[in-house]
Amino acid sequence: MLDCFFNPKSVAIIGASSNENKGGYHILKNVTSGFKGKIYPVNKNYKEILGLSCYPDVASIPDNIDLAIYFIPARELPQTVDECAKKGAKGIIIESGGFNEAGEEGRKLQKRALENAAKAGIRLWGPNCMGFIDANKTHVFSFIHSAVWPDVLRGGNVGLIVQSGMLSAGFLLHALQEGVMGVSKACSIGNKCDINENDLLEYMIKDKETEVIACYLESLVDGRKFLNLAKKTNKPVIVLMGGRSVQGAKAAQSHTASLSGNYNIARGAFRQAGIIEVFDPAELTDIARAFSKKMPCHPGKGTAVLTFSGGAGTITTDLMDDCGLELAKLSDKTLASIAELFPAWNKPDHPLDLWIAIEQHGFEKVFHRSLTAVFNDRSVDSIIFHAYATPLIKQEFFNELGDLIRKHEKPVVLWIEGRKDFAAHLRAQAENAGLPAFREMKRCVTVLKGMKQHFAKKPGK
Amino acid sequence: MLDCFFNPKSVAIIGASSNENKGGYHILKNVTSGFKGKIYPVNKNYKEILGLSCYPDVASIPDNIDLAIYFIPARELPQTVDECAKKGAKGIIIESGGFNEAGEEGRKLQKRALENAAKAGIRLWGPNCMGFIDANKTHVFSFIHSAVWPDVLRGGNVGLIVQSGMLSAGFLLHALQEGVMGVSKACSIGNKCDINENDLLEYMIKDKETEVIACYLESLVDGRKFLNLAKKTNKPVIVLMGGRSVQGAKAAQSHTASLSGNYNIARGAFRQAGIIEVFDPAELTDIARAFSKKMPCHPGKGTAVLTFSGGAGTITTDLMDDCGLELAKLSDKTLASIAELFPAWNKPDHPLDLWIAIEQHGFEKVFHRSLTAVFNDRSVDSIIFHAYATPLIKQEFFNELGDLIRKHEKPVVLWIEGRKDFAAHLRAQAENAGLPAFREMKRCVTVLKGMKQHFAKKPGK
Repeated sequence: MLDCFFNPKSVAIIGASSNENKGGYHILKNVTSGFKGKIYPVNKNYKEILGLSCYPDVASIPDNIDLAIYFIPARELPQTVDECAKKGAKGIIIESGGFNEAGEEGRKLQKRALENAAKAGIRLWGPNCMGFIDANKTHVFSFIHSAVWPDVLRGGNVGLIVQSGMLSAGFLLHALQEGVMGVSKACSIGNKCDINENDLLEYMIKDKETEVIACYLESLVDGRKFLNLAKKTNKPVIVLMGGRSVQGAKAAQSHTASLSGNYNIARGAFRQAGIIEVFDPAELTDIARAFSKKMPCHPGKGTAVLTFSGGAGTITTDLMDDCGLELAKLSDKTLASIAELFPAWNKPDHPLDLWIAIEQHGFEKVFHRSLTAVFNDRSVDSIIFHAYATPLIKQEFFNELGDLIRKHEKPVVLWIEGRKDFAAHLRAQAENAGLPAFREMKRCVTVLKGMKQHFAKKPGK
Repeated sequence: MLDCFFNPKSVAIIGASSNENKGGYHILKNVTSGFKGKIYPVNKNYKEILGLSCYPDVASIPDNIDLAIYFIPARELPQTVDECAKKGAKGIIIESGGFNEAGEEGRKLQKRALENAAKAGIRLWGPNCMGFIDANKTHVFSFIHSAVWPDVLRGGNVGLIVQSGMLSAGFLLHALQEGVMGVSKACSIGNKCDINENDLLEYMIKDKETEVIACYLESLVDGRKFLNLAKKTNKPVIVLMGGRSVQGAKAAQSHTASLSGNYNIARGAFRQAGIIEVFDPAELTDIARAFSKKMPCHPGKGTAVLTFSGGAGTITTDLMDDCGLELAKLSDKTLASIAELFPAWNKPDHPLDLWIAIEQHGFEKVFHRSLTAVFNDRSVDSIIFHAYATPLIKQEFFNELGDLIRKHEKPVVLWIEGRKDFAAHLRAQAENAGLPAFREMKRCVTVLKGMKQHFAKKPGK
């Protein structure tokens, strides 16, 4: 139903420009860089842009079009919708502002455009948005600066639905540039006059390329539908709501022209629907990234904590307690197996501070033995693993760890501490092997909590 | 009183080694790399290490010594203390383990060593610790791998007191490698059989080189004294307690052999003493880093939020609400001054989403105008500034901003979002100008909350 947006055969860019300081240039540049169908720039001031024939108006395009991207002043939208209708368009992405968020005149324009579109069976995306990116298809249908993409565009399985233009760009860049999370579709929905979070959630739930769904929303168009969709899918749905507080709701209202609902009511309903609630964009991308690794999980028991620092083990245990995660009661067999690597005067306890054993037997042996022991322990459903950043740990170690995770169906979240260069290297190795790794302890705990919450409601992988 | 540790004229290294795989090598290498006094390696297996004469035992050292660093097995400590006494030593840093944390035998050794030291007037640091670093003097009296230091050792005004060996190393490396926080003294206190957090807190309060004090502690030797010291000083004291939870307290007990107190009682007392409480090592270093900039602050009013993204403004406002920070009620004059840069149909509201104005007038003009307006607004006591990562913002901009902060005595905390390379550049510029900058929204809010809490109790700069 949204295929006119995600699989168009032809795209008209209304407001294309050859001026690199204008968004209309970057939309065209972005579309031409990845989209393989027909592209029609529209702007009465140019005959040609980027080697493509440019048309003075939509009517002059010599063929039908599937999709239009609109980036000219708001006042021309209602008429342009009619012109697009005559060319058989099924969808228009309106990236300009000046509509509902801009007072009475804008509201009238948005209403008329919507009426014209409804008559013609055209779906409207936006307005006041940054469009979307399909990273697997390398479709960038957005005015985000075109210089950014060649380095960062990275396909994957995380779908983003973001009700804020600049923030969606920020999210995306941040997530993609970390180089550890690939994106299927990243959608900026703006004023959502027609296409809204429910349309996209429904689409992403069916979309084979999307396995994790992360949303930033400031309002719910139809809360019941949103909850039902989230409830029925086994894909993790992670939501950051903007406007939770009275002050925040006021802020949200002023910039997207939509009323925030009563957040406390939403919260309980979210939890019942299995939605994972987060409070900061970094948390949203952290948890999405962890789910994108597709680690299996069967929650119900405790978490094992392996560390090289007693202090770090203590802090992690405190942070787990803060959010209701329990330390596993390790079996005597597990402790005995790990104790073989310890001196007689210092037997391991849980959290497992492995440093003394590491000093005697080296990282790999101690990590391998103790990880194997906790994987085999029935009281353990998940593992927080503090990896000391050292070049002594090799890629093979993490590959084996990845295999253990899949064999035992217990997720592992890594905290890496130590020299910056070593830590970056270790993190890359871990992520290569399908393990989420963080440099803040609290992130590990928050991420694991989100995973256990999801899999408790929705068993599976 | 602790001058024998921080200003010794001569140091004996008991357990020095020429084997690079041993800590005894790294202690000697670290000491020789920065310490300008006399250095006496002690090890009966060598005649010379790193070009220095090596002595079979302390008795053979041809001169008196101020300080000894002990890195041989625990059982030799009591006798070694006596030998050090004969050489006039005033302090011994015991970096070996095997004492109170290692059962009955270890407890006896620690007790005897302490008795011998008391008789001779020698102060003992540790045992079971990583020693300390004085980054301003480039004294590294620790077995931390010597290859690490040349790149990262950076003097500054933050003092660290850490009751965990490996964690103190991690803290330090992390903080120093970010390249944005300098350290005065970083102290790992281990079992604190003699020198404890109160000794070091008292020293750092008097120490001219230390202006901010950050602690990780798992127990308080004398809670009342700690609180009194913190209460009397105007220097910010930030504390992360390990063992807040029942599970965590059990973990803390097992690795440092000290009982954790009742945390809920401690919490209230901390707040009354003006101590800033944090829950994660990253928070500890974030807040210490912000204080190290010495931004003046007179809390009592609200915070202004300037952003380039309505969504980011909304989330920040929600996060502020979560921790009790209020959005300032900007004056009509302030809003009118900023409104001049906005189109007629879209007047600014608070949080200030400046994007529309930026599109028309560029970053620097809009940022400058709006920052000046909120600095001059009497309802504003602090500013959260979301800076979009663009090369269009220059160093001079941040220098001017730094001047405004000092002139108006209102702190600014930055959130930087956008392309990774631009963001890193912008952050460096901001930090150069004395502004703390973060890449997570929540960090900005947590840091500002900590600052306002401190300055509400302790007016000043």
